[in-house]
Amino acid sequence: MASSNEFWLDLESAPVGSQRDFSKAIDQLVFNEQGLITAIAQQFDTGEVLMLAWMNRESLLISLQEQRACYWSRSRNRLWRKGESSGQVQSLKGLRIDCDGDALLLAVDQQGPACHTGRKSCFYLGLKGLDLKEGQLEILNAPEIDPTSLYK
Amino acid sequence: MASSNEFWLDLESAPVGSQRDFSKAIDQLVFNEQGLITAIAQQFDTGEVLMLAWMNRESLLISLQEQRACYWSRSRNRLWRKGESSGQVQSLKGLRIDCDGDALLLAVDQQGPACHTGRKSCFYLGLKGLDLKEGQLEILNAPEIDPTSLYK
Repeated sequence: MASSNEFWLDLESAPVGSQRDFSKAIDQLVFNEQGLITAIAQQFDTGEVLMLAWMNRESLLISLQEQRACYWSRSRNRLWRKGESSGQVQSLKGLRIDCDGDALLLAVDQQGPACHTGRKSCFYLGLKGLDLKEGQLEILNAPEIDPTSLYK
Repeated sequence: MASSNEFWLDLESAPVGSQRDFSKAIDQLVFNEQGLITAIAQQFDTGEVLMLAWMNRESLLISLQEQRACYWSRSRNRLWRKGESSGQVQSLKGLRIDCDGDALLLAVDQQGPACHTGRKSCFYLGLKGLDLKEGQLEILNAPEIDPTSLYK
């Protein structure tokens, strides 16, 4: 969708390589009513999508400062430095923003599995066949490590 | 995060290859207060993340029936068959669900650019360097086609 925000609109037609101060871009990010923005974590070298999580402004700033992914945990209602209890840290390798400033794409180097089930990716459930009536949800991946060893 | 939903919890420890009726899985998806769930569109062969959008239950069912991505447009407040006006259709090649049933990952074959700016991916803005004070937001990709030709 076209953005109604001048900052993002202006970038659409700017030449490749054009730059803006990132600190100003952060001020223009579109957070939702809870002050959150979606963040996709993608393994930087394989392209595997690992998980989708949420960030608030503070967790984004922490992620940049510490060069590791820090999210806002909606279930625990607090900052969540990915791997703080499991050790499964996501080193931050890059950050992208989408065309209307309301989604982030993190390039990360995932240490161990990203998923609390012990799997590399949280997207471990796949639809087998696209026929709704016949379609089956299938477990595509086994845990790489015993999840009970992750959280002690 | 561990899910509080028995359906997703039960799958965590089921063997690889285990199957569930997909129609039942859809009933267990976790839609937000607006009845929406996040959907990441990823180019099926290159792994490039193209965009993040939202689906409601109906748009998901349409996507499966028509084997092309159909989203819920929050700005237009209506169903949005991707490419309906631009021609930039996303053929659906696969669908995954994450561990707690609140995010979708679509494998698509994107016809032309996914982004309304004429770029392949909506994530065309990248942070150059991870230092917040020195960091610059940079335009990484040029449009592949003139965006004014997309919407007439």
